[in-house]
Amino acid sequence: MNSQSNLKNDVFLRALQCQPVPYTPVWMMRQAGRYLPEYRATRAKAGSFLNLCQTPELACEVTLQPLARFPLDAAILFSDILTIPHAMGLGLQFETGEGPVIQRPVRSAADVSKLGVPDPYQELRYVVDAVSLIRRELAGRVPLIGFAGSPWTVATYCVEGGSSRDFAKIKAMMYQEPSTLHALLKVLTRATIEYLNAQIAAGAQAVMLFDTWGSVLTPSAYREFSLAYMAQIVAELKREAEGRVVPRVVFTKGAGPLLAEMAKLECEALGVDWMTDLSQARQWVGERKALQGNLDPSVLYASPDRIREEVVKVLASYGKGHGHVFNLGHGIHPAIPPDHAAAMIQAVHEFSPKYHA
Amino acid sequence: MNSQSNLKNDVFLRALQCQPVPYTPVWMMRQAGRYLPEYRATRAKAGSFLNLCQTPELACEVTLQPLARFPLDAAILFSDILTIPHAMGLGLQFETGEGPVIQRPVRSAADVSKLGVPDPYQELRYVVDAVSLIRRELAGRVPLIGFAGSPWTVATYCVEGGSSRDFAKIKAMMYQEPSTLHALLKVLTRATIEYLNAQIAAGAQAVMLFDTWGSVLTPSAYREFSLAYMAQIVAELKREAEGRVVPRVVFTKGAGPLLAEMAKLECEALGVDWMTDLSQARQWVGERKALQGNLDPSVLYASPDRIREEVVKVLASYGKGHGHVFNLGHGIHPAIPPDHAAAMIQAVHEFSPKYHA
Repeated sequence: MNSQSNLKNDVFLRALQCQPVPYTPVWMMRQAGRYLPEYRATRAKAGSFLNLCQTPELACEVTLQPLARFPLDAAILFSDILTIPHAMGLGLQFETGEGPVIQRPVRSAADVSKLGVPDPYQELRYVVDAVSLIRRELAGRVPLIGFAGSPWTVATYCVEGGSSRDFAKIKAMMYQEPSTLHALLKVLTRATIEYLNAQIAAGAQAVMLFDTWGSVLTPSAYREFSLAYMAQIVAELKREAEGRVVPRVVFTKGAGPLLAEMAKLECEALGVDWMTDLSQARQWVGERKALQGNLDPSVLYASPDRIREEVVKVLASYGKGHGHVFNLGHGIHPAIPPDHAAAMIQAVHEFSPKYHA
Repeated sequence: MNSQSNLKNDVFLRALQCQPVPYTPVWMMRQAGRYLPEYRATRAKAGSFLNLCQTPELACEVTLQPLARFPLDAAILFSDILTIPHAMGLGLQFETGEGPVIQRPVRSAADVSKLGVPDPYQELRYVVDAVSLIRRELAGRVPLIGFAGSPWTVATYCVEGGSSRDFAKIKAMMYQEPSTLHALLKVLTRATIEYLNAQIAAGAQAVMLFDTWGSVLTPSAYREFSLAYMAQIVAELKREAEGRVVPRVVFTKGAGPLLAEMAKLECEALGVDWMTDLSQARQWVGERKALQGNLDPSVLYASPDRIREEVVKVLASYGKGHGHVFNLGHGIHPAIPPDHAAAMIQAVHEFSPKYHA
């Protein structure tokens, strides 16, 4: 029996390839996260966020938690976009309420020259093991998404030393010493290709690149420092595994009209945030790629009735066609009541079939 | 002698109206700010940021400081977009390193119902007096810009109680209780009209609306909760003063393709951040409005030579034509060396005349 027959719900994988589906599949960015009390319990048990990421059994446990509650059409590996700089030895800590801190930030050509490409089967073994374990525990219920941060986005943390509001340090490097930044992006790109291919080899059935900070760049800097490296990554990913295409999703938050340029990427789907209407995105991107998005995550603060109304608007904005994966435009907020997420998912399944008739 | 003849440099006002100018005028958002040691000295003398805003002599002093250093083509009133909620009695404090704090945030219809429209000649008298004083001290060197925050942007602080990353509280209100938010926006709109008209009456020769947070909204929410109120404001502003048109500039940071809709506003010019090329913005907006922008503020971290190269790119992106006011795409960062700002201003004056031949 081939593995494909093991997958009981392939609606998500088919939608990513614009193939006919009976309804619009749905998952949520950060669906395994703090809004779930069971996540908070496992997180407490783990002691630290990093330990949660690095313990395959715990990462598997939280990955599966939202699937036990909701009829989601995909699971996503529980991990973090900063596993690569961590594996490169830059030192990563998550301070409570502060976000990530890189203890040895990259500030010079000399700093970059010390960086090597981590071996995904050594320094990132815990991720590969988590993927294998999750696949086993999923038992074909839904596909598993693997992911990584875009080189630009990961580089912002490496250079700034953590989160930033104005990205002063990395932009100073970009404008003053672009070759240093390119060298950093190059090693991150190589690391990301090997990392994602290892995730695919271990069982990831789709992969997503998160470019959270691409939109802080001018359009020309975006092309040079973010898009070009993502293009290289998607072009070098394994195209198939287990006899099935492994769809690639690229998401630049805030891309807006740059979606028209992203449409040339060698990937199956593009993520769309809530600041762009899906109808507009579809015009920019054309019909050859699927779109994933794009409910404003803040809609989930409203009542279930209001949530349903807004879900209908997003479905209508995409309109008829099979290339839509419903999602939030960004990660679910920690204060959202789980019942509100349930209302969203239920509404997608209830109201979407008419767009696939 | 009429007042117009008193103005020695009207290049900025003419460019805002797309009238012929010999070069591209330039000013910088937050040009009176922390990157200047003389500003930091006055700020220290004032004791608090709020006291600096509220003391006309000190506000005048810092407004004029960048003009003493640089050949800028406009001055902008030193003030803050939160003077209106402060005048409404919501309590405003600026915590060091924390940004603004609204002590009595607006969370309910009852909270909104208590808000009145401040009398600009009473509660905001200090702003009107600062405008008069600055005009006198400017002695016609360059025009003075007055400003206010957009109702949506000011409302985010009123509801969140300060700065925010996810705007959870105001968006919860927007999706769940839109009539409460509309009531808040309505009173802020009325207050802003009276406030800006008082600034014009006191001598502001152009006015600008800062919509810093409009782009955190979906396009339809942007239209309903931000753009509609800005449209009302610009339509109700005094059209002329001292025998001269008072140009109106509207700036939504992150507007992107929404610039095409902003083009219908009754205003002379639109601000453009660095995430949109001016050539693209010009296509969206058309030739009837001037554009103000759009150098990435982080370019000023680079060397003067690199700054000059990037200035040339922005000038070339706008291309030939008179409707361009050079500016940064957002406020100048506090860590920028003043010499770098000087290099930018000098480059604009040096390289722009050929676009006006």
